[in-house]
Amino acid sequence: MSKEKIVLAYSGGLDTSVILKWFIEEGYDVVAYIADVGQEEDFEAAREKAEKIGASKVYVEDLKEEFITDYIFPAIKSQAIYEGRYLLGTSVARPIIAKRQIEIAEKEGAAYVSHGATGKGNDQVRFELSYYALKPDIKVLAPWKMDSFLTRFKGRTDMLNYADQYGIPVKASRSKPYSEDDNFLHISHEAGILEDPGAACAEDVYSRTASAADAPDTPDILSITFEQGIPVKVENKNDGKTVTGALQLFTYLNDLGTKHGIGRLDMVENRFVGIKSRGVYETPGGEILYKAHRDLEGLTMDREVIRIRDRLSIDMAHLIYNGFWFSPEFDLLITTMNKAQETVNGTVDIQLLKGMAYPLARTSPNALYDPLQSSMDEEGGYDQKDADGFIKINAVRLRNNTMVRR
Amino acid sequence: MSKEKIVLAYSGGLDTSVILKWFIEEGYDVVAYIADVGQEEDFEAAREKAEKIGASKVYVEDLKEEFITDYIFPAIKSQAIYEGRYLLGTSVARPIIAKRQIEIAEKEGAAYVSHGATGKGNDQVRFELSYYALKPDIKVLAPWKMDSFLTRFKGRTDMLNYADQYGIPVKASRSKPYSEDDNFLHISHEAGILEDPGAACAEDVYSRTASAADAPDTPDILSITFEQGIPVKVENKNDGKTVTGALQLFTYLNDLGTKHGIGRLDMVENRFVGIKSRGVYETPGGEILYKAHRDLEGLTMDREVIRIRDRLSIDMAHLIYNGFWFSPEFDLLITTMNKAQETVNGTVDIQLLKGMAYPLARTSPNALYDPLQSSMDEEGGYDQKDADGFIKINAVRLRNNTMVRR
Amino acid sequence: MSKEKIVLAYSGGLDTSVILKWFIEEGYDVVAYIADVGQEEDFEAAREKAEKIGASKVYVEDLKEEFITDYIFPAIKSQAIYEGRYLLGTSVARPIIAKRQIEIAEKEGAAYVSHGATGKGNDQVRFELSYYALKPDIKVLAPWKMDSFLTRFKGRTDMLNYADQYGIPVKASRSKPYSEDDNFLHISHEAGILEDPGAACAEDVYSRTASAADAPDTPDILSITFEQGIPVKVENKNDGKTVTGALQLFTYLNDLGTKHGIGRLDMVENRFVGIKSRGVYETPGGEILYKAHRDLEGLTMDREVIRIRDRLSIDMAHLIYNGFWFSPEFDLLITTMNKAQETVNGTVDIQLLKGMAYPLARTSPNALYDPLQSSMDEEGGYDQKDADGFIKINAVRLRNNTMVRR
Amino acid sequence: MSKEKIVLAYSGGLDTSVILKWFIEEGYDVVAYIADVGQEEDFEAAREKAEKIGASKVYVEDLKEEFITDYIFPAIKSQAIYEGRYLLGTSVARPIIAKRQIEIAEKEGAAYVSHGATGKGNDQVRFELSYYALKPDIKVLAPWKMDSFLTRFKGRTDMLNYADQYGIPVKASRSKPYSEDDNFLHISHEAGILEDPGAACAEDVYSRTASAADAPDTPDILSITFEQGIPVKVENKNDGKTVTGALQLFTYLNDLGTKHGIGRLDMVENRFVGIKSRGVYETPGGEILYKAHRDLEGLTMDREVIRIRDRLSIDMAHLIYNGFWFSPEFDLLITTMNKAQETVNGTVDIQLLKGMAYPLARTSPNALYDPLQSSMDEEGGYDQKDADGFIKINAVRLRNNTMVRR
Repeated sequence: MSKEKIVLAYSGGLDTSVILKWFIEEGYDVVAYIADVGQEEDFEAAREKAEKIGASKVYVEDLKEEFITDYIFPAIKSQAIYEGRYLLGTSVARPIIAKRQIEIAEKEGAAYVSHGATGKGNDQVRFELSYYALKPDIKVLAPWKMDSFLTRFKGRTDMLNYADQYGIPVKASRSKPYSEDDNFLHISHEAGILEDPGAACAEDVYSRTASAADAPDTPDILSITFEQGIPVKVENKNDGKTVTGALQLFTYLNDLGTKHGIGRLDMVENRFVGIKSRGVYETPGGEILYKAHRDLEGLTMDREVIRIRDRLSIDMAHLIYNGFWFSPEFDLLITTMNKAQETVNGTVDIQLLKGMAYPLARTSPNALYDPLQSSMDEEGGYDQKDADGFIKINAVRLRNNTMVRR
Repeated sequence: MSKEKIVLAYSGGLDTSVILKWFIEEGYDVVAYIADVGQEEDFEAAREKAEKIGASKVYVEDLKEEFITDYIFPAIKSQAIYEGRYLLGTSVARPIIAKRQIEIAEKEGAAYVSHGATGKGNDQVRFELSYYALKPDIKVLAPWKMDSFLTRFKGRTDMLNYADQYGIPVKASRSKPYSEDDNFLHISHEAGILEDPGAACAEDVYSRTASAADAPDTPDILSITFEQGIPVKVENKNDGKTVTGALQLFTYLNDLGTKHGIGRLDMVENRFVGIKSRGVYETPGGEILYKAHRDLEGLTMDREVIRIRDRLSIDMAHLIYNGFWFSPEFDLLITTMNKAQETVNGTVDIQLLKGMAYPLARTSPNALYDPLQSSMDEEGGYDQKDADGFIKINAVRLRNNTMVRR
Repeated sequence: MSKEKIVLAYSGGLDTSVILKWFIEEGYDVVAYIADVGQEEDFEAAREKAEKIGASKVYVEDLKEEFITDYIFPAIKSQAIYEGRYLLGTSVARPIIAKRQIEIAEKEGAAYVSHGATGKGNDQVRFELSYYALKPDIKVLAPWKMDSFLTRFKGRTDMLNYADQYGIPVKASRSKPYSEDDNFLHISHEAGILEDPGAACAEDVYSRTASAADAPDTPDILSITFEQGIPVKVENKNDGKTVTGALQLFTYLNDLGTKHGIGRLDMVENRFVGIKSRGVYETPGGEILYKAHRDLEGLTMDREVIRIRDRLSIDMAHLIYNGFWFSPEFDLLITTMNKAQETVNGTVDIQLLKGMAYPLARTSPNALYDPLQSSMDEEGGYDQKDADGFIKINAVRLRNNTMVRR
Repeated sequence: MSKEKIVLAYSGGLDTSVILKWFIEEGYDVVAYIADVGQEEDFEAAREKAEKIGASKVYVEDLKEEFITDYIFPAIKSQAIYEGRYLLGTSVARPIIAKRQIEIAEKEGAAYVSHGATGKGNDQVRFELSYYALKPDIKVLAPWKMDSFLTRFKGRTDMLNYADQYGIPVKASRSKPYSEDDNFLHISHEAGILEDPGAACAEDVYSRTASAADAPDTPDILSITFEQGIPVKVENKNDGKTVTGALQLFTYLNDLGTKHGIGRLDMVENRFVGIKSRGVYETPGGEILYKAHRDLEGLTMDREVIRIRDRLSIDMAHLIYNGFWFSPEFDLLITTMNKAQETVNGTVDIQLLKGMAYPLARTSPNALYDPLQSSMDEEGGYDQKDADGFIKINAVRLRNNTMVRR
């Protein structure tokens, strides 16, 4: 009888290496799958490691461009921000990783998929909901929630011993007393020494961005051009450098954001599993785009559209954070967001300096701004006396309320 | 027959001085009312000026403390932010000014109130809706919307000539090519040379805050303590200075925010009258508090309460911006906000540096954060296997959708 | 010099006849425009009357089918219901009337449009907002808000005398002590003797529907088939009669609803101008469709889509009621609604009896209902033990809250 | 060693009787708890049955009045309606049953509670979330989700045999091919033959209400008086009978609603566990109150308060349906609802006839309705010309949008 096949989301780290070996021991044919969503990683070394441990096949998939165009940009154009602050760096990466994993499972005829996320976090939810949504009959093995695995590995020491026993190399360097997740959009730091939200995060935890203190004293000023809410061009007004193409553009913004210390966040947030959690995030390019995009909306988006959209952005952020990217409600909201972005065309000048991305100026062929009209001095096709009636009618209700209360 | 009495919101500037004189000419008995909401002004000089022009009585009312405790703090604890960015600096000042004006009108037996706001802006709406809500039978004279006034004064030259004719002193210094409004919470700059949203605002327009470039390289780190969402104590961790009392505390935050260049904003927003408008704002102390308060909520407020509240914050911001402070819907929402803030007690450490207020740490007697539970390593009264069922049940709906679509 | 041309929305009644004549007297070239949106009217008599009074041209426009497909059906598929109850019968008729009027104005080169609605109601707003939105440079003359008209006509007697003077025939029969507006979707009754909301509306005010008491004791049971939320077929299960085509279908539903006394409503609602108003409505076919459509959604629409949509239905109802049919926010919401309706296909059996439309059964090719799964007895691809974890994880937050509060 | 004690929510039916016996067999000391929330039941017979089976103690708790005042009335005054239609009859009963059960567990020093709800429904969630929220350290045993129980009882036959073996009497009469749940607010019918949503529910399934066809031809007309949204008096205008007191009043409304066939509903709804389910409900008194209460709100509640509240009613319905009665978000929303109801005082005349509760008239000391103002004929302190400015200002945004798009 042939072995059951399992596609494992493999990172190259200790945990998924142990899991890979353990599944083989348990009698599975394990396909290792490494998703490149822009994280810092030696992908070839990871491939070799997986092969050496015994993966029957290893997929290293470059998902960077698709990640940017189909996941990061839709989140930004939706102004999806979780609990007022978090730019969803991890959340948007999970669905694309899961999607490709399911495609591989289908190609490989694997009945199982697996990941190394624990049972307390959000990532397990995001992975597994995506798996089930994309392939309802998929079977998921999540070792950190399996008795057989938990009995075998009671703690980190058991895993290190196991790795030692099977010759799985352990990066000596990986001694950070907290955990990290990184991709093109952000790097997150959490757990370990960061678990006390009352203790400030040490400066050296921040690994991507310069501190505001160390960032250059001279700003870069960028002109970022959007079409229907999507960034299509960045021009650096300092040196005239122009960048187009999603991957190049986002890389460039990440570089500049990193240099200027932009996109840091230290917050206590609410996980979908009901736990509060403290996370430290660095989202340099993302923050620049969120700020520039919102600024352009101010010029081009109708007031009532903004009002409705702002409420839906909260919903969008929640569903992305909670792992419902592949869901009917996402399909509904993204349709709405796309409609709302039809007029969000134009260019924003934004200054990058000392930790801040600060919009300076904005222009658009769709500008709803009329300088004559908005001027306090000019008439501009607007009869100020009309405001009298406007206010009096708006006051009818208020006056009635006051009179009745008395 | 005795003259009709009118209470005029008087600023000491050219416009309201001309209006004051013109009303006297028109046969009214004019009471000048100057509200001190923390703006930079020589109130005694303004009083003398009003008296000299012919006001029958002049009220100079110190509303600073009430403005902070009853208007600024409620807005902050509601996390009321208009169109994602604007901290409502002008909006919250108008209702308190109007409220005292109506009280004076009642005390003076005046049937009329007046203000100098134009017919294109938001302030006319905020003043007049407040007037009508507080005293439904009040009569409002808004010269900029009156034919008789507009016929008399066709432009600025007419006003200057009029002032000259009647010996009304005109501040020569006041030559800024844009208009400003300031109070304890913020200063705004708009109109004039700022009317082109595609032209960056010159650095010298910012009159309150240092630029990030010029701000000190060394941060101040503050511990801000909140009780039920209201700031009650600020301690500077650099020097141990401790400040309590609403007025002292907010003054101190304004000073530090000013020094560190915090609270700038340049945006195109939507006025209630349907016009888009570009404003440049400086809200130093306010931004520090908004950031610190939101951070403490992360630690102390339940996830679903946050979700509901965040939608209502949008409503709150709109009603404040649009002038409906004295309304049934404000009464409803503030009741909700107060309830939501019952657990928002504790202290936030926040770093002020180079234009940014950045929360570093937060503690609370009501913390809903449980480090054991949130730890990825520990068990913490949480069985990770439960997450399996949680995810599978959440996936039921998604799987059904996918299966039916096929 | 040629006369200014005005297109007047003409009803054939006293008011618009007087207005027509008065505009001619005032020197305008008046084009009378009669919109047929399904109201009871002798359109040819109205045409002759307008011609006789002196209209330079008369348009009688049959808008019935477009009214049903482009206005009534979109409102129903949006589940737009104002203040929990009102099916928007008048609200949806105004934009189509205004739209055709503007088209005629453009064709006729008329700079002006006019209507006979008063300054206290919603209809003036709906007409005029539509005019301005569709043709921003249009000039609107609303006699009931014009001094020259109000000076000329101080009350009804002046109008009757004027009619008499100019030989304008006045329907003797029109002696109802309240006003009515009817169209294909509904008839409304308000004002006059209905102005006391504490006095029950007399049975004889209801002019379209049978009373529940008088309605037949035997039900009709209809099978109504929807495609993407739009009704496309009605079959009467009593007699097998089948009706398709928007106009025929809606006429048939109106007939049966009328017969069974369906769609009555007596409520106090809030006008956009800030006044509360009491209206009595009869919406026979509309109520049947709203009920059947909602029922089919239960079977075919995802839970979270329903949740989001239900909030947006409130927004949709408000904007329709307030006259913002031609607006960016309508365009946004209808896009959302259309997306949400993609799966709303199928057939609802609905019983009409004694004032009620009561869904009995529903089937769909897109049914998200799975009898095996929903069965309490069967397993149906659902492991009940998963519910344990689902509940425990949902309880994490609640338990934390309780523990912290103690 | 003493036995572990368990408090079992006991209904007297087959399932919980078998569970009771099985727990005893498993070595538990079982306290049976019967909650009287108004269901039809011989409570003394149930007590004897529990005692005979071996319960160490039996509690029969009369919760009717508290159920009405603290659960039913708050839901009604919140206008909490799930998915547009369902009046939450089962949902509101679960929390009160769980609450008393926890109180008994604490009094009895029991570490465990149990219920007989299955793993597919909503009730397990509502019970268990309530348990955990009220007593975070409670242990829940839900036999239908326990392997040991499911192994012992593979189906209904096993349970009948077990009952036979231990002399547990089985009601021969209980042969309905579907399941029911009843309490003071409603009776529900689901499962079994009702599982096909495409098959109409047979008339004889409805056990509480008369059919519209059989209901009397003569209406009852009631005057229902509310104080702050709570019904306090009902007067029958037919015979002058007056009822006060929550229990008496609600009983009387149930009787009349039953007689007139009011409160039927047949719908497909979405369970919290992600399954769609078909339910048939009868909620006679509840529907009368929901309708009357909403009608009074029309007269007394401010427009913008209604608009905000209507969105929150959706949230309230969801949290009640999903079992989050004892939650921070409920505490927040009920505070909001209570505030919104302060003005909902007055009397509604409502006609009960042939399945419908139809409001006829409403009066209130807090009426925001002003007949003069709302009149189309009168002036009423309202200058119609103000409407011109109101509309023109509202049109500014629309005109700009149109002009820019061209």
